[in-house]
Amino acid sequence: MPRFIKKHSQKAGLSPGSLVHIGDKKIETVKIALISYDQDQLLERDLSAIEESFAYRDTAPVTWINVDGLHELDVVEKMGSHFGIHPLVLEDIVHTGQRPKAENFEDYIYVVLKMLNIDTAADHITAEQVSLVLGPHFLISFQEKEGDVFDNVRQRIRKARGRIRKSGGDYLAYALMDAVVDHYFVILEKLGDKIEQIEEQLLENPTPRIFEDIHHLKREMIFFRKQIWPLREVLSSLIKDPSDFIQETTHIFFRDVYDHTIQVIDTLESLRDVLSGLSDLYLSTISNRMNEVMKVLTIIATIFIPLTFIAGIYGMNFEYMPELKWHWSYPALLVVLVVIFISMVIWFKRKKWL
Amino acid sequence: MPRFIKKHSQKAGLSPGSLVHIGDKKIETVKIALISYDQDQLLERDLSAIEESFAYRDTAPVTWINVDGLHELDVVEKMGSHFGIHPLVLEDIVHTGQRPKAENFEDYIYVVLKMLNIDTAADHITAEQVSLVLGPHFLISFQEKEGDVFDNVRQRIRKARGRIRKSGGDYLAYALMDAVVDHYFVILEKLGDKIEQIEEQLLENPTPRIFEDIHHLKREMIFFRKQIWPLREVLSSLIKDPSDFIQETTHIFFRDVYDHTIQVIDTLESLRDVLSGLSDLYLSTISNRMNEVMKVLTIIATIFIPLTFIAGIYGMNFEYMPELKWHWSYPALLVVLVVIFISMVIWFKRKKWL
Amino acid sequence: MPRFIKKHSQKAGLSPGSLVHIGDKKIETVKIALISYDQDQLLERDLSAIEESFAYRDTAPVTWINVDGLHELDVVEKMGSHFGIHPLVLEDIVHTGQRPKAENFEDYIYVVLKMLNIDTAADHITAEQVSLVLGPHFLISFQEKEGDVFDNVRQRIRKARGRIRKSGGDYLAYALMDAVVDHYFVILEKLGDKIEQIEEQLLENPTPRIFEDIHHLKREMIFFRKQIWPLREVLSSLIKDPSDFIQETTHIFFRDVYDHTIQVIDTLESLRDVLSGLSDLYLSTISNRMNEVMKVLTIIATIFIPLTFIAGIYGMNFEYMPELKWHWSYPALLVVLVVIFISMVIWFKRKKWL
Amino acid sequence: MPRFIKKHSQKAGLSPGSLVHIGDKKIETVKIALISYDQDQLLERDLSAIEESFAYRDTAPVTWINVDGLHELDVVEKMGSHFGIHPLVLEDIVHTGQRPKAENFEDYIYVVLKMLNIDTAADHITAEQVSLVLGPHFLISFQEKEGDVFDNVRQRIRKARGRIRKSGGDYLAYALMDAVVDHYFVILEKLGDKIEQIEEQLLENPTPRIFEDIHHLKREMIFFRKQIWPLREVLSSLIKDPSDFIQETTHIFFRDVYDHTIQVIDTLESLRDVLSGLSDLYLSTISNRMNEVMKVLTIIATIFIPLTFIAGIYGMNFEYMPELKWHWSYPALLVVLVVIFISMVIWFKRKKWL
Amino acid sequence: MPRFIKKHSQKAGLSPGSLVHIGDKKIETVKIALISYDQDQLLERDLSAIEESFAYRDTAPVTWINVDGLHELDVVEKMGSHFGIHPLVLEDIVHTGQRPKAENFEDYIYVVLKMLNIDTAADHITAEQVSLVLGPHFLISFQEKEGDVFDNVRQRIRKARGRIRKSGGDYLAYALMDAVVDHYFVILEKLGDKIEQIEEQLLENPTPRIFEDIHHLKREMIFFRKQIWPLREVLSSLIKDPSDFIQETTHIFFRDVYDHTIQVIDTLESLRDVLSGLSDLYLSTISNRMNEVMKVLTIIATIFIPLTFIAGIYGMNFEYMPELKWHWSYPALLVVLVVIFISMVIWFKRKKWL
Repeated sequence: MPRFIKKHSQKAGLSPGSLVHIGDKKIETVKIALISYDQDQLLERDLSAIEESFAYRDTAPVTWINVDGLHELDVVEKMGSHFGIHPLVLEDIVHTGQRPKAENFEDYIYVVLKMLNIDTAADHITAEQVSLVLGPHFLISFQEKEGDVFDNVRQRIRKARGRIRKSGGDYLAYALMDAVVDHYFVILEKLGDKIEQIEEQLLENPTPRIFEDIHHLKREMIFFRKQIWPLREVLSSLIKDPSDFIQETTHIFFRDVYDHTIQVIDTLESLRDVLSGLSDLYLSTISNRMNEVMKVLTIIATIFIPLTFIAGIYGMNFEYMPELKWHWSYPALLVVLVVIFISMVIWFKRKKWL
Repeated sequence: MPRFIKKHSQKAGLSPGSLVHIGDKKIETVKIALISYDQDQLLERDLSAIEESFAYRDTAPVTWINVDGLHELDVVEKMGSHFGIHPLVLEDIVHTGQRPKAENFEDYIYVVLKMLNIDTAADHITAEQVSLVLGPHFLISFQEKEGDVFDNVRQRIRKARGRIRKSGGDYLAYALMDAVVDHYFVILEKLGDKIEQIEEQLLENPTPRIFEDIHHLKREMIFFRKQIWPLREVLSSLIKDPSDFIQETTHIFFRDVYDHTIQVIDTLESLRDVLSGLSDLYLSTISNRMNEVMKVLTIIATIFIPLTFIAGIYGMNFEYMPELKWHWSYPALLVVLVVIFISMVIWFKRKKWL
Repeated sequence: MPRFIKKHSQKAGLSPGSLVHIGDKKIETVKIALISYDQDQLLERDLSAIEESFAYRDTAPVTWINVDGLHELDVVEKMGSHFGIHPLVLEDIVHTGQRPKAENFEDYIYVVLKMLNIDTAADHITAEQVSLVLGPHFLISFQEKEGDVFDNVRQRIRKARGRIRKSGGDYLAYALMDAVVDHYFVILEKLGDKIEQIEEQLLENPTPRIFEDIHHLKREMIFFRKQIWPLREVLSSLIKDPSDFIQETTHIFFRDVYDHTIQVIDTLESLRDVLSGLSDLYLSTISNRMNEVMKVLTIIATIFIPLTFIAGIYGMNFEYMPELKWHWSYPALLVVLVVIFISMVIWFKRKKWL
Repeated sequence: MPRFIKKHSQKAGLSPGSLVHIGDKKIETVKIALISYDQDQLLERDLSAIEESFAYRDTAPVTWINVDGLHELDVVEKMGSHFGIHPLVLEDIVHTGQRPKAENFEDYIYVVLKMLNIDTAADHITAEQVSLVLGPHFLISFQEKEGDVFDNVRQRIRKARGRIRKSGGDYLAYALMDAVVDHYFVILEKLGDKIEQIEEQLLENPTPRIFEDIHHLKREMIFFRKQIWPLREVLSSLIKDPSDFIQETTHIFFRDVYDHTIQVIDTLESLRDVLSGLSDLYLSTISNRMNEVMKVLTIIATIFIPLTFIAGIYGMNFEYMPELKWHWSYPALLVVLVVIFISMVIWFKRKKWL
Repeated sequence: MPRFIKKHSQKAGLSPGSLVHIGDKKIETVKIALISYDQDQLLERDLSAIEESFAYRDTAPVTWINVDGLHELDVVEKMGSHFGIHPLVLEDIVHTGQRPKAENFEDYIYVVLKMLNIDTAADHITAEQVSLVLGPHFLISFQEKEGDVFDNVRQRIRKARGRIRKSGGDYLAYALMDAVVDHYFVILEKLGDKIEQIEEQLLENPTPRIFEDIHHLKREMIFFRKQIWPLREVLSSLIKDPSDFIQETTHIFFRDVYDHTIQVIDTLESLRDVLSGLSDLYLSTISNRMNEVMKVLTIIATIFIPLTFIAGIYGMNFEYMPELKWHWSYPALLVVLVVIFISMVIWFKRKKWL
């Protein structure tokens, strides 16, 4: 459940704008990495103190400051005051239970995303909150811990591949969002693989375990859906609301991420439908099995209970039972029993139970 | 059911604007508390008569008048006439079955909220109606009984924490609404904990009791949903409709509560989906169990009923049954029975029933 | 079913505007009551002929003409031609299968409502069509039969309570609609009581009867919903479309009825959810019971069928069965049977079937 | 299925506007009937060739040309070229798998409707496509076969009842659409009757047959819904888009058909809900029956299997069984058996199984 | 699953606009066919190199360049740079996991469609991505492999049938889209046939196999739906957004495809409803069968178990059992057994189990 609900209660009643880090502390020390670039030059540094980044606020080339770890609140606070970020935004950055959203401020755009991953040990999807603050010459990204899906973007900057070095911070923001959304497809594929696996097992040998797997997968999908559904609005608002920080030429790229997001949502919905079909299939299989079991029981009991009764009759100890004395009555009875047996079997065949 | 439907029938046919307190009388005497403040000064008083508050209507600093208890109708009426509140609004204040709503009047804004709580004794969610009347220099809050989620707000005013003392009544209104919505998260967490608890029990030992718990939780969620769903519209109308009583700078705070509300609704929907998955899981578990039981019955009956029949045959008392005389027929029969037994078991193994 | 579908077929193919009374004739003779009032004076009369009302069409004070009974078509026709009502409207008035609606004409507003009641004998909800024609100085209300929910409104007019005597026909129209909607709450409460009753029975002793009750209640709710759902649009159109016949100051009152209607619909939806939860609970209880029954059968059969088989073995009449001769074999066998019995019981305990 | 999907495949790949009659040929020869009228005069003729109608295109009175049978494509083509109808419209006229729609052209309005009927032999709803082309002075209606719901309209024209002879082609179009929609109510009533019949049978004696009936009815309703759902949009577009061919005064009549359509849809939805409730009721009844059957089996088996075992014990042939020698042991055992029997019955009574 | 999710993961992290062919390589060598035409002339060529098509970019008549096969990325790249297509569009062309969409660029319109087919071997629906790039004088279509539904369009161009040779590229685009959508009807019909087949089998002899077939069909429909649902928006945006490349006179044709798409979606939804009804019918049939089986078991067991008990009583070996000595006790007992048997049968008849 903690994945679904972050502990808001720790914060209930605090004055708005007070920074409280909600979420697990997933990293020991905060890491700050700075990449500053334009078409011709590139500077990449790991900062030991946040103050070192301040000089880059208004210098012309694009500067990307990436912060891993949100528990050292004064780091966030200092950045906030230097880069002019609204206290409520800072609060949202450190409170990792945010819904994806985009907010237009006068001096910057604030975007919250969820970077998803599959924790193979616990076999469920984990979400890490990524906050982007896009100003005129800088882009600050906040993550909960080290390790992300941005390595390719870094490579593209370093090797000046594609148009990234020729473009501004808005394109960088797009590239990061695109990387996050692209990673959703990886997760979708894994979910799809699992569904396929479940379907095969189901058709082969349906065990109760399978329904638990289906249930588990349904929960993962509810979680997945909760994380990505709002992204649709986020991107559509970034496209529709003209902002000074997003250039006309970058619009088509944001449209592209938007299309991808819709595609993720579409596919997820289809997978949900498929999964719910599997769950119906499982239940119907169980019913069929039960039916099968019942038929076997009924056939055996229906054939032998009457026969046993007849045998029981001639096991009685009455003194006067004339049949017992007759010479052929035993073989005759055996014949009768066989006839009953065969006619029962024929009757079951007719009813298509055999 | 009374939680779902307030006794409107008491009122049916009365002239509109006639004050009738609908709801339980939850407090003995009405309590009126007044806090008047600006950046520099603070006045806090418990009033013995409502008239004492009248002087604060138009004086410059922000005055918050909090009324606990709605059954003394003349208190409400006097405030209404002095502060110029429309009779229909007064009716809504004392009639605690309102749907959350916001209404813009010329001289004030009227907001109805539901403050939720968990009654641990009866193990269900209770709702208390909170009405806010925000005028140019005052904010009146009406509650059904003492005890609320506003203590933190009071502390922030007293200790001048955050921006509350520097801001107007609109910010105070925001702070109160924020406190109410923040408390929803506390309830969500409790619901989430219960769902998790149910899931664990379900996977371990599913008893009929569990389905009743699921049913109970579903009802609580329907109730919860009914209380908070309309809040979405309330807040969005407060943000969209420009009102003289809400300053530009406070808008971002209202947006913040709006975001939280959406998050509550989102999470609630996810929890509903999870719960409905649990209910499916329970039913499938029951089916599996039934299947298990049936299999045991069928195996035992199918093996022993034919064997008993054979034993029955040789229990018959016919005089002429040559087998009975043979020396080895008893051991031979025992062998036959064992062979039948073993082949049945093998057959069941093949059918994967064993 | 007749409650759901009025016999339109009687009318199929008739020229539009031809008056045909569709619905049961619920009253012997048509009753016409007239109340004419302003702030200072009040005139109340039962009319023997509809023509007597014609004089009041344009006289300044508000005149409310209430017609009980729709089967005397010439009464409706005469009113129609004198008060200038469109033939299609007259057709709708006498054809009681209308959907609630509001139509703005140049000289009047036409509103159709459904007055609901619980027929305790047949134990279902009945609907009576109420048509309101609001002109500049008159309000005509048409009902199917005597007896309505308007007595309180009449009292308020007679005793000059509230603002009704000081207001115009629009306020009177509001008062009537409010009385109708307020009565919906009475029905909601009865439905709520019944649901609660069903739930109690269900948890105590679930009989097949209960599911029929749930089914019956579901049908009533479908019927209820069908009658009130369109009212939402009706009221919202009355509020949004400015009409000369509804004054600015009455708007807030219409908003109030609108809020109540939403609340009725909301609560109805919640009750539907609760009811559908009960229906799930019933089915799961039935499943659990079946499980219980199966377990008892399986335990008994599984224990005694093998024991009976063993007894059957020693009931066989073979001449050479050495065990039969031994002295201790009978007590030994009894011990064996008891051991089998006990180990079976232990096995069932382990499987948690006992 | 053919009712759901017309054989589009015959057409796949043809050039648009190529006339191919899709649907069964339901009539031998095409029949063309012409009615031309104004307030004073009336001309009614059966035409042997379509060319005879051409003279009426622009003559002042209203001319209604009704074509029964769509398989003679040159008739449709000639009308098309003379009356200036777009090839795509002609294609839609002869391709009877259209969705109801209304299209505004410069010179005419094109409306497609579905005339529904109950085929009592096959016991399902049949749909016939009716196309209306409303020009300034003419209205052409195309039907698939003879026989329609328009006889009353013809009578009204002949006998000059109502306003039809005083009005233009738009009113005639309205009258035809009204006739079609009014006939939907007839079908609704028949569906309603059937549902009621099913419900009665269900409460009395639920057979598997009933579920098939419910299933059949559900399919009919899906079919019905598919035919009428788009009509809503059709009529609302006719009302909202101002067209030269529909006069202001006719608008209220179109609104009336619109209201009826909504009512049909509403009622259909309610019936669907009721039907789905019946289907739940059936399944629950089946469950209850199964439960009943299981209880009988369990009671009998649980009582007699142990008793039979005891009898089996004393049927064993051990030489040393002291009880067998005792004088009172037989009656004593009978007493024991009766005591077991009675205590079992009491136990079942306690469990409320008896 | 691969049909549902294309391997986006191969691409994750690449710079946007980098061409990666996602999807199976379905053809050995890329085939390029060019048809250039106006009202009077027609040129049809198979190109060996893409450069041969460049000359046709701006020449006045309409030129249709069809590319079969997407894996030779430099072909696509060259076309892109010559015809001025945005890199992101090129990326979408070769990445065959796109959602149907239409995008308006300054110099061209880009449309993605899904051409569906039934793979009779694997018995499922396959989708092939068709991309259309419509410029002022050219239309480029990209397909994954040879073989399409456009042969009729080609014939119409060659034989100058219909208006295609008289119209521009927009009409050609329409013709291609129409061909794709028309083919959906073919698939719908096949689905419809299968549903009908399943229904017949179901009513005749419901086997577990049928539910798997239903499940399979449901999946196919989910897949179908996913492919065509977005087409609705695509076409409506083509109609609503005025584009220089689509002439006024072609609008009515796009409306026509739009209508067809809606019809496909409508019919698909109806089929889904029918299928889900079949699935309910299957489950209810299974329940009925189980009930039937249980009844047989119960009848047999309930009749014979007590009888066997009675026979068991007189099989006991007590020395003192006076009945055993009586002369008539055996026939008397037989009579008693027969009486019990008959009264049981009568009882079951009364309960309607027989």
